Amino acid sequence: MTTVATGLATRDLLGIRDLSAPEIELILQTAFAMKEIGTRPIKKVPTLRGRTIVNLFFENSTRTRMSFELAEKRLSADTLGMTTAGSSVSKGETLLDTARTLEAMSPDMIVIRHGSSGAPHQLARICRASIVNAGDGTNEHPTQALLDAFTMLEHKGRLAGLKVAIVGDLLHSRVFRSNVLLLTKMGAEVRACAPPTLVPPGLRAMGLHVTSSLDEAVSGADVVMMLRLQLERMQGLFLPSMREYFTLFGLTPRVLERAASNVIVMHPGPMNRGVEIDSEVADGPWSVILDQVANGVAVRMAVLYLLAGGEGEGGDK
Amino acid sequence: MTTVATGLATRDLLGIRDLSAPEIELILQTAFAMKEIGTRPIKKVPTLRGRTIVNLFFENSTRTRMSFELAEKRLSADTLGMTTAGSSVSKGETLLDTARTLEAMSPDMIVIRHGSSGAPHQLARICRASIVNAGDGTNEHPTQALLDAFTMLEHKGRLAGLKVAIVGDLLHSRVFRSNVLLLTKMGAEVRACAPPTLVPPGLRAMGLHVTSSLDEAVSGADVVMMLRLQLERMQGLFLPSMREYFTLFGLTPRVLERAASNVIVMHPGPMNRGVEIDSEVADGPWSVILDQVANGVAVRMAVLYLLAGGEGEGGDK
Amino acid sequence: MTTVATGLATRDLLGIRDLSAPEIELILQTAFAMKEIGTRPIKKVPTLRGRTIVNLFFENSTRTRMSFELAEKRLSADTLGMTTAGSSVSKGETLLDTARTLEAMSPDMIVIRHGSSGAPHQLARICRASIVNAGDGTNEHPTQALLDAFTMLEHKGRLAGLKVAIVGDLLHSRVFRSNVLLLTKMGAEVRACAPPTLVPPGLRAMGLHVTSSLDEAVSGADVVMMLRLQLERMQGLFLPSMREYFTLFGLTPRVLERAASNVIVMHPGPMNRGVEIDSEVADGPWSVILDQVANGVAVRMAVLYLLAGGEGEGGDK
Repeated sequence: MTTVATGLATRDLLGIRDLSAPEIELILQTAFAMKEIGTRPIKKVPTLRGRTIVNLFFENSTRTRMSFELAEKRLSADTLGMTTAGSSVSKGETLLDTARTLEAMSPDMIVIRHGSSGAPHQLARICRASIVNAGDGTNEHPTQALLDAFTMLEHKGRLAGLKVAIVGDLLHSRVFRSNVLLLTKMGAEVRACAPPTLVPPGLRAMGLHVTSSLDEAVSGADVVMMLRLQLERMQGLFLPSMREYFTLFGLTPRVLERAASNVIVMHPGPMNRGVEIDSEVADGPWSVILDQVANGVAVRMAVLYLLAGGEGEGGDK
Repeated sequence: MTTVATGLATRDLLGIRDLSAPEIELILQTAFAMKEIGTRPIKKVPTLRGRTIVNLFFENSTRTRMSFELAEKRLSADTLGMTTAGSSVSKGETLLDTARTLEAMSPDMIVIRHGSSGAPHQLARICRASIVNAGDGTNEHPTQALLDAFTMLEHKGRLAGLKVAIVGDLLHSRVFRSNVLLLTKMGAEVRACAPPTLVPPGLRAMGLHVTSSLDEAVSGADVVMMLRLQLERMQGLFLPSMREYFTLFGLTPRVLERAASNVIVMHPGPMNRGVEIDSEVADGPWSVILDQVANGVAVRMAVLYLLAGGEGEGGDK
Repeated sequence: MTTVATGLATRDLLGIRDLSAPEIELILQTAFAMKEIGTRPIKKVPTLRGRTIVNLFFENSTRTRMSFELAEKRLSADTLGMTTAGSSVSKGETLLDTARTLEAMSPDMIVIRHGSSGAPHQLARICRASIVNAGDGTNEHPTQALLDAFTMLEHKGRLAGLKVAIVGDLLHSRVFRSNVLLLTKMGAEVRACAPPTLVPPGLRAMGLHVTSSLDEAVSGADVVMMLRLQLERMQGLFLPSMREYFTLFGLTPRVLERAASNVIVMHPGPMNRGVEIDSEVADGPWSVILDQVANGVAVRMAVLYLLAGGEGEGGDK
């Protein structure tokens, strides 16, 4: 029986690393309540009315940005967007001056995606606003891991003891890092599968089963999570060819035959069909990929709600 | 006496092609009520409060995008913008994956503009959300035709029997296609005027009067609608020069003398002054071009309201 | 004792040039009331509910755009963004057609930033909507001067008699122009300091003390306002090198020793640290630079409120 926290210990969500198992449990349970709101005709509660949330996306991300914005609007927050991809405000001290400027405008929360690992942590040090990490460099993407866990829980009823295979570019993936941290805290068994050139050091020391055999990773798995191959990073450096990658690491119905009978297949999106995943799998009965998207909104509502102090629907002026 | 429908038969507005005359009548009558809201100090009704509308613009269009966004906000909907011009999500299967992802976030409506004819129809097949076509390739632009009809009705009191000359690049114009479909359904008489290279086949079979003489098209016309010459498409391919185009097809006060005495001049914007229209006409007493812009908001409010089920101002949570 | 106006004489805020001293006083006093709203948990009043404000930014400006958008949302207005940097709608007649199109959609206010001096005035001539100048060419940036005055008032308790040194590229700076107009109207003593190549003609005729000696400008000053050096304009044309500029005109703790004992240091941002200002000054006890940012939201709320007629919080439908 899992313990559930009564609130979050911090004002920020910088990474799964900082969350305890009872805090993760609290976020997931709150997300179940939030998901119900999304089924109403009026998908809106006044919880964060009058609060201002700045969405500060230094990297393009339609999917994550829209998911956060929807979550914010369903909680009645005022949202401001600042997309700076391609602009001059991108690194070092300039990020700090941007943060100080934003902070001076007294937003209640800042959701930040940035290409540099640790950027949200820099913000958190100087801002009273709650900082939510929406992906920083190759470090963490905590709300993705939380929505993945929520989706597993919804389909499997538990996290402890689940056999989860994660396959793909483990070396560069913040989705992988956050998932490993969360799943090991919650007692799941993680198998990490990648070409040898894409395996970061130290995974075995964390208790993971590491293999370059997809068959081995998938064998008996309850969950198979495929990572996106970031094609722009890959050319010639780490992989011989896309075709060879698909042959060795692409998820097909044939490979899935080795998994547990009710295996679910996950992918954080956007997918490269025919590279890391076969269309027959992506659109097949195993796939919960669109559930992940739907759950993303509920999980982000839960995170924003809890960081705001978890107060009731009141807050009326 | 025209029949008026009591509601729309479909959940989507993909094209004028799918609307019956009584449905068109319903939209236009509803737009008159919506226009009144725009004259109030508080130009807002709670009709779509708590509903989420995604504006998915794969082509740039400040004018149409702002008109839709204003209509949505006047109905109190929550709006999310996704402009993808220049991004990688633009065609084929990728559009479907984008649509499935959006759909998973449960928006109530998606307004889409896309460079490929049929893109909104693809979305409609997989989405529960209502799809509104804001312009697809060279196919249709239904809300433009509806706002044009509304403007004619406002100035002329009727559509049936009106003599409407439409002049310009008929071959590539979705505005022309939607207008022809609407005007013929409503009993207007359409004259189509263009250089021979810019006339699509089959117009005469639809009952249109086709001519390459501007004088002939305008003669006795109640309405003259000039289309925008898409300069980027034209160079050398279809037309000898801009100067020659203006000489033969540019609307001037002199040409307008042949029209009916109370002729009105329309243009979907943005105008190329001195190419398809003389500034003296664009800014003259015949011009209802800015009325079209104003009516666009009211017509889009009517469409969104009716697609949402035409429920009263209630919907309070 | 200063006189306070009971309302603004115009529907637009085009420049400090058009404001009387009692009107400036009214805006500043209203801003003190608005600032209090920013300290509440629910930082929102329904004052402009149902009003539509279009933010029309032809030049990039994250800082000013966000400050206006926050001010608008705290007043419950509906906001529409139109950023046209890099698009084709940028000058001459096209600006007028864009303005007429916008106007036809009946927004209540248009906030415009444009690279051409006088662009907001063109809009004001054809629009019923209130026009707010958010910076036009090298002409004016009135809300910046108002927030600067508010910040001085907050820290010094008065404007009349204050010794204010303004240092930097006076020739191209709309911030300088608006500040000089405001400060001289309110009875402050302005010292203007720049390299001789960056001094516009006519300053002495306006009663300013003009010098190229930073020491002389700062000597006994109550306020030192550093302007941003627009590096992109400077290369080789007006200045020998950045290093030499910093040596002669960069604000350091050593230079500040000559100022009045409680001197405050201001900068409109974004700063070029090490070019016009030393980091030790920017982050030191003299600096009120982040106060300026915070006050920007309150001052813009006051301007929008007063232009809307200064009606109470009512306006409920």
